[in-house]
Amino acid sequence: MEYRIVKDTMGEIKVPANAYWGAQTERSRTNFNIGPHASMPLEIIHAFAYIKKAAALANNQLGVLETEKKDLISTVCNEILAGKLDNQFPLVIWQTGSGTHTNMNVNEVISNRIHVLQGNKLGEGQLFVHPNDDVNKSQSSNDTFPTAMHISAYKMVVETTVPGIEALRDTLKIKSNDFKAIVKTGRTHFMDATPLTLGQEFSGYAQQLTNSIRAIKNALEVVRELALGGTAVGTGLNTPKGYDVLVAQKIAEITGLPFITAPNKFESLAAHDAMVELSGAMKRCAVSLMKIGNDIRMLNSGPRCGIGEIIIPTNEPGSSIMPGKVNPTQSEALTMVCAQIIGNDVAVSIGGSNGQFELNAFKPVIIANVLQSARLLGDACASFNANCVIGIEPNLPIIKEHLENSLMLVTALNTHIGYENAAKIVKKAYAENITLRKAALELNLVTNEEFDKWVKPEDMIGSMD
Amino acid sequence: MEYRIVKDTMGEIKVPANAYWGAQTERSRTNFNIGPHASMPLEIIHAFAYIKKAAALANNQLGVLETEKKDLISTVCNEILAGKLDNQFPLVIWQTGSGTHTNMNVNEVISNRIHVLQGNKLGEGQLFVHPNDDVNKSQSSNDTFPTAMHISAYKMVVETTVPGIEALRDTLKIKSNDFKAIVKTGRTHFMDATPLTLGQEFSGYAQQLTNSIRAIKNALEVVRELALGGTAVGTGLNTPKGYDVLVAQKIAEITGLPFITAPNKFESLAAHDAMVELSGAMKRCAVSLMKIGNDIRMLNSGPRCGIGEIIIPTNEPGSSIMPGKVNPTQSEALTMVCAQIIGNDVAVSIGGSNGQFELNAFKPVIIANVLQSARLLGDACASFNANCVIGIEPNLPIIKEHLENSLMLVTALNTHIGYENAAKIVKKAYAENITLRKAALELNLVTNEEFDKWVKPEDMIGSMD
Amino acid sequence: MEYRIVKDTMGEIKVPANAYWGAQTERSRTNFNIGPHASMPLEIIHAFAYIKKAAALANNQLGVLETEKKDLISTVCNEILAGKLDNQFPLVIWQTGSGTHTNMNVNEVISNRIHVLQGNKLGEGQLFVHPNDDVNKSQSSNDTFPTAMHISAYKMVVETTVPGIEALRDTLKIKSNDFKAIVKTGRTHFMDATPLTLGQEFSGYAQQLTNSIRAIKNALEVVRELALGGTAVGTGLNTPKGYDVLVAQKIAEITGLPFITAPNKFESLAAHDAMVELSGAMKRCAVSLMKIGNDIRMLNSGPRCGIGEIIIPTNEPGSSIMPGKVNPTQSEALTMVCAQIIGNDVAVSIGGSNGQFELNAFKPVIIANVLQSARLLGDACASFNANCVIGIEPNLPIIKEHLENSLMLVTALNTHIGYENAAKIVKKAYAENITLRKAALELNLVTNEEFDKWVKPEDMIGSMD
Amino acid sequence: MEYRIVKDTMGEIKVPANAYWGAQTERSRTNFNIGPHASMPLEIIHAFAYIKKAAALANNQLGVLETEKKDLISTVCNEILAGKLDNQFPLVIWQTGSGTHTNMNVNEVISNRIHVLQGNKLGEGQLFVHPNDDVNKSQSSNDTFPTAMHISAYKMVVETTVPGIEALRDTLKIKSNDFKAIVKTGRTHFMDATPLTLGQEFSGYAQQLTNSIRAIKNALEVVRELALGGTAVGTGLNTPKGYDVLVAQKIAEITGLPFITAPNKFESLAAHDAMVELSGAMKRCAVSLMKIGNDIRMLNSGPRCGIGEIIIPTNEPGSSIMPGKVNPTQSEALTMVCAQIIGNDVAVSIGGSNGQFELNAFKPVIIANVLQSARLLGDACASFNANCVIGIEPNLPIIKEHLENSLMLVTALNTHIGYENAAKIVKKAYAENITLRKAALELNLVTNEEFDKWVKPEDMIGSMD
Repeated sequence: MEYRIVKDTMGEIKVPANAYWGAQTERSRTNFNIGPHASMPLEIIHAFAYIKKAAALANNQLGVLETEKKDLISTVCNEILAGKLDNQFPLVIWQTGSGTHTNMNVNEVISNRIHVLQGNKLGEGQLFVHPNDDVNKSQSSNDTFPTAMHISAYKMVVETTVPGIEALRDTLKIKSNDFKAIVKTGRTHFMDATPLTLGQEFSGYAQQLTNSIRAIKNALEVVRELALGGTAVGTGLNTPKGYDVLVAQKIAEITGLPFITAPNKFESLAAHDAMVELSGAMKRCAVSLMKIGNDIRMLNSGPRCGIGEIIIPTNEPGSSIMPGKVNPTQSEALTMVCAQIIGNDVAVSIGGSNGQFELNAFKPVIIANVLQSARLLGDACASFNANCVIGIEPNLPIIKEHLENSLMLVTALNTHIGYENAAKIVKKAYAENITLRKAALELNLVTNEEFDKWVKPEDMIGSMD
Repeated sequence: MEYRIVKDTMGEIKVPANAYWGAQTERSRTNFNIGPHASMPLEIIHAFAYIKKAAALANNQLGVLETEKKDLISTVCNEILAGKLDNQFPLVIWQTGSGTHTNMNVNEVISNRIHVLQGNKLGEGQLFVHPNDDVNKSQSSNDTFPTAMHISAYKMVVETTVPGIEALRDTLKIKSNDFKAIVKTGRTHFMDATPLTLGQEFSGYAQQLTNSIRAIKNALEVVRELALGGTAVGTGLNTPKGYDVLVAQKIAEITGLPFITAPNKFESLAAHDAMVELSGAMKRCAVSLMKIGNDIRMLNSGPRCGIGEIIIPTNEPGSSIMPGKVNPTQSEALTMVCAQIIGNDVAVSIGGSNGQFELNAFKPVIIANVLQSARLLGDACASFNANCVIGIEPNLPIIKEHLENSLMLVTALNTHIGYENAAKIVKKAYAENITLRKAALELNLVTNEEFDKWVKPEDMIGSMD
Repeated sequence: MEYRIVKDTMGEIKVPANAYWGAQTERSRTNFNIGPHASMPLEIIHAFAYIKKAAALANNQLGVLETEKKDLISTVCNEILAGKLDNQFPLVIWQTGSGTHTNMNVNEVISNRIHVLQGNKLGEGQLFVHPNDDVNKSQSSNDTFPTAMHISAYKMVVETTVPGIEALRDTLKIKSNDFKAIVKTGRTHFMDATPLTLGQEFSGYAQQLTNSIRAIKNALEVVRELALGGTAVGTGLNTPKGYDVLVAQKIAEITGLPFITAPNKFESLAAHDAMVELSGAMKRCAVSLMKIGNDIRMLNSGPRCGIGEIIIPTNEPGSSIMPGKVNPTQSEALTMVCAQIIGNDVAVSIGGSNGQFELNAFKPVIIANVLQSARLLGDACASFNANCVIGIEPNLPIIKEHLENSLMLVTALNTHIGYENAAKIVKKAYAENITLRKAALELNLVTNEEFDKWVKPEDMIGSMD
Repeated sequence: MEYRIVKDTMGEIKVPANAYWGAQTERSRTNFNIGPHASMPLEIIHAFAYIKKAAALANNQLGVLETEKKDLISTVCNEILAGKLDNQFPLVIWQTGSGTHTNMNVNEVISNRIHVLQGNKLGEGQLFVHPNDDVNKSQSSNDTFPTAMHISAYKMVVETTVPGIEALRDTLKIKSNDFKAIVKTGRTHFMDATPLTLGQEFSGYAQQLTNSIRAIKNALEVVRELALGGTAVGTGLNTPKGYDVLVAQKIAEITGLPFITAPNKFESLAAHDAMVELSGAMKRCAVSLMKIGNDIRMLNSGPRCGIGEIIIPTNEPGSSIMPGKVNPTQSEALTMVCAQIIGNDVAVSIGGSNGQFELNAFKPVIIANVLQSARLLGDACASFNANCVIGIEPNLPIIKEHLENSLMLVTALNTHIGYENAAKIVKKAYAENITLRKAALELNLVTNEEFDKWVKPEDMIGSMD
């Protein structure tokens, strides 16, 4: 490969001849050979493009950056946002904990790309726009990287996570309504219990997700606060007056999202509690989905030796050895995602708890986990919804058979003959493998007519009139 | 020990002669010999007393329970709430996952205590108030235990957790104000950085806690929703119409806390997402406190070979072997609590994710962890506040010495001579172990007067005018 | 309450008149009002008694402690080990992270108890045996507390944890043998699959526990290494030559357990990786038990609307509202314990990861979690074994019905007619709700005789001859 | 894009014209649009190539697969292992929990690639080697995927993880020896303590890693056990006699690693405890490394306002705003990796705990996390070693200054004047900001000569002679 020689404050280093990045990026690329190449999420890079553009606009408006430089920086930021320079960001998550290397990667690429746009060759001549003094003006890695964390997480959550959960929740609500007249046996402790409707069962799932969405939206309230303007340690050193408010406004305008400047920049640099809170809210949703995914797969189990009260869509052959097998694969993908999110939340919490003085130096691992959780959560809900829940049908014959067999219908007799007498009926029915009615009559605890009047599953699905 | 013979639907069993509890409690006591005796939190027992009383009131008002029984039940509930019967609840956390045994423990104790209050001897004669048909009327373990979880958690959080955090946050705010004029070196990556004030540093801690309190209060919004009225599977079977709303109102009145009936009882029985959310919010606060506790101990480190910029109160001799040693013990207790809360959150999440169909059968482990976290969080904040933070003093000579030595004051020169020239000054000063000023002058990059004008720590703690 | 005045290097303080503890204990009791009183596990206190006795013996043998003092210290240690002084240790887990307060609590109690044994009154006259200079001779909290952690954990694991797991594993092996001829349908993805025997299913559970026991025993290899002799920072300052080896030998003799001195004391004080490893091994076992507990409850589910292939013992009435309900309560207690252990492991890992320089100051939280996990794991296995697994019986009619219905018997045809033809048979049988045989014959893919010869569940439970 | 039509047991589907994969792969690709494309680790694909080749060899040797087919399958497996077909595996982690889709992906690619190697065009004519009946012969996804998990994890651990840790450990040992004569102040509770040598400090780190390596190797003992031969549910249905032992032997031969057949295949399919154990062992190492990484960065802190007792290599400019700043970036990358591994361990544990009956259907999430942890752990240790630890130098002037200032040298006086008198000296020295010697003399507790004789740091780094 061909190289050119570049230099930074530490001296010279060879960089691939056509790479827009410079010395600092190259040093990181060499010094952090950890895990797959270029693992720093592209969402972070694109968020940096919003930041660099917004900073140029604000700096220009506040009189500390020439209009020509502002325009050039904006042009390259637009290219980055359009995905044209995605291959210019080779760095990994496992670099410095402040994300400085990625900030400098962006600064260097913008600087050098401008150089080329101006008709120069890489590595020849003086850079018109300096990576530190111009592109990074009024900024530090310590405030830009947290800002990129918030922008990328907020975008992912509102564009992918919440829509995915909402779509699933809406389908569950529709199913809840569709199934509202289907009375079935309940199960508590995985044992037969008193009846409810299939619609009621699904209404619980919908409620879980409604509450999860609320929790995620609560967390977004702190995610929309941006650190930008705090610079190195939160004081705003080397920024023009009014810059923090203005630059957040610029970012809000460019992204169309309600970002504001953070009320306390020391907190924003030294802690990532907002990310911990968001991760926790997504984890709460993962906990909900683990329950929902498991219930769906267990309700569908069988087809002949399980519970089998619902039928899920058949999407793929289930087995490489057992012909004709169909499996609840969407539940499996969903619940695997949930396990990942719960694990990620621990990584985020540990990262979040390890800030020291003016900086939390676990930024890349925190945002990488938050973005993965947000993406997987939204995608998995969308997939589970489209490929499974939408197509769920009740298996009415099985539901009816189970309902009629359930000994727990006896509970309706409690208010008439007392808990202890009702228990005698169940014990007899179970021991002799006979129906509740037969046991009740043989014990002379109710008459045939009373049994008909009192033990009606369809009357057992709500409070008494 | 003396015994009496009692019976339930499964037959006879021996119970300690003077115990108010009955057969079902005794079965659980025998069958679940796991961990220390009586580990089920007393807060749960007391919450059950609120429930049994409120249910009796609501049942009476709705015409399904005689006034005499209602009054007797209320009387014993008041005794439980006064702590008079605390030794009557011998069961452990590690019982049935629905908490049924504890519900029955309470039902049995109330029944038998009434029997005695009526002048009877334990084990003789018929019980006037039946544990299932009367004390448990319009209830199931499946809705009472979750209700007890919410009542006990809500109470603990508003009475202990939030006040503890708020007291600490308020002190941090006061310190932030007290220390607002003390300029000191900042530290990022645990390395010397540009200056800020000690007050600014403390303002970040206060902000972290303000945000944590907000997150906990957000979670309380779902904790105040009560499952009661859902009975066995969420349908409200065997409850009179209007009972769920009324009984929540009764609980609100008795406790003085804003409880309401849950909008969807299927969710309330089958999932404990509200507990997961509350635990997550407390975990978020633990993450904040881990940072704060660590910073305080590191700022205090020394006294002669550390950072030593603050002085914390001397509370106990620090070492059994090193005479005169003083340690940051309050930070240690606090951060240990934080580790526990982060671990507890995982236990709660796993428990929460394992509900099946109409019931989550990990209720006791969930609430035991939530209550422990809530208690420890509040207590540890109160202790850290009273025994450490209130007494923190700046160590002014050290702060001054560090500030004057810090090479990062050079950052103020960026906007005058550029990042690269500034870097040259630092490198020279560091390599030759000389002052920044000396290096700057020798490099002819600034004049003595410029250095005086530009490098002023007290001008580096905010944005430029 | 009556008090006496005591003093330490920080001055005077009031202590309850009859308490054997002294000033330093009292300071901790006052300054750490966090969570329930006296939460420091008694196992730690008793381990300290072993340490203080062994140290006295070693110090005496090496000529640095008079025989009279050695004998007096030994006498009181024996009292502590006999449980006679259990109420003299009022401190909490949430104290200094080195456990110094508990070490001093033990030192003070021994000193004062000797004073009384010598005929003196508490608070009057000079102590013959000094808490620091004699009881704590050749020791520091920094090496005694880790030693107490290892002793208490090792003892709990070999006395409670491993025996509990082994008993359960042995029963599972017996059941595996008892059930070896019972052919049943397999289930993968919770869907019907090819057959196996119930004995084979149980053999998998037994293997899981055999492997778990092996993992726990591997971890014990580092737990048996003791820090004692490292004193303040690991160097062994103020210990006589040969002391570390000798004192470990004394502890081994007194406890009858194979303790040895740690090869590197710096590691033993500054890290608690041995505890992290032990906790991880117990967590691995908890993961195994979660699977086993869940399988048992699901295999037992029903009685009429579930899987119902095994019958577990009926131990308690299952519901306060549903008469005659029986629940898999032992599975529930077991799996709740597993959730706790997995959560505890995170707390231990966080504590373990936060050591700094010569000391890990998260010792109490680490050992409290390890001991709880060890105790619960052993107790829960013992309970699950005795109250559930021993009594498990197969439900033969259900097993037979499921086996005969299972469509996955078709897999036996793969090697005869190919996977794709076999799939056609299943699809037809499922769609038309007919038997495999009927579908196979109607498709002309096998003859009646071939079906008889090839599709034999009893031939499908091992590899081909 | 151009397509061809392919079919499986569920019907027809369009596949990209030039893709070697078939219908089942395509269904999964369409149905599981979750997270980034092709996220299933390539290590798993390559492990499958070992399996398919070994199975073909074993099947051939046992007489159930023609030699021609065996040779063809082997040829394509070699191509896969050479990385020539890496772009033919487009599936994601978040698919079916058994990994069936990936197994079928491999089966289909091998089948179709053979078809092309035989001179045919994709989609035309009959496949000579059938994906299920030939390539998958004597196999199921349920035993191949776990086998691929074990092969890929074992290889990664012995090729990357352990060598990385060992290299770091060896350097730490060398440093420990290099620094053995450098006496420095110790620190406990982050406070000044008695002295030790820098070499002793580093010896603790080396011991931590030695113990971690041992734990990982212990876990490998179960990872080398292979599920292959269990087929669908562990019984070995449709495998020739002796196949399981033989195929493990073939895999051992091909890979050069000591694989053996698992003693109990039911355990191997239904549980992934071996992965949980391996993940736990790596987590234990991460806990060790968190301590080591933190210590290194804190010992290096400064350069002028921190602890500064060691100097780490300068690898990159540390800040985009603070000129000349150098940060402990390798510590940061390492500790971020540790946070990830601790989080991954929770995901693995949750996945591992959720097996049901004959299958654990969380396989892909488990192995993805295990492989990521193994890779990151090895890479991060290698990077930390090469770019940081190898270059660590002591900062002798600072070490000397700290040592001389430390008040904890007083501990040497304990055995001469008692703990309480020693404490008086420290208190006076600290309060009056004077030296220990001055305080001691002024208190008349020692003479100048005694002080010289007793307080010698170089005599305080081991037990007394």
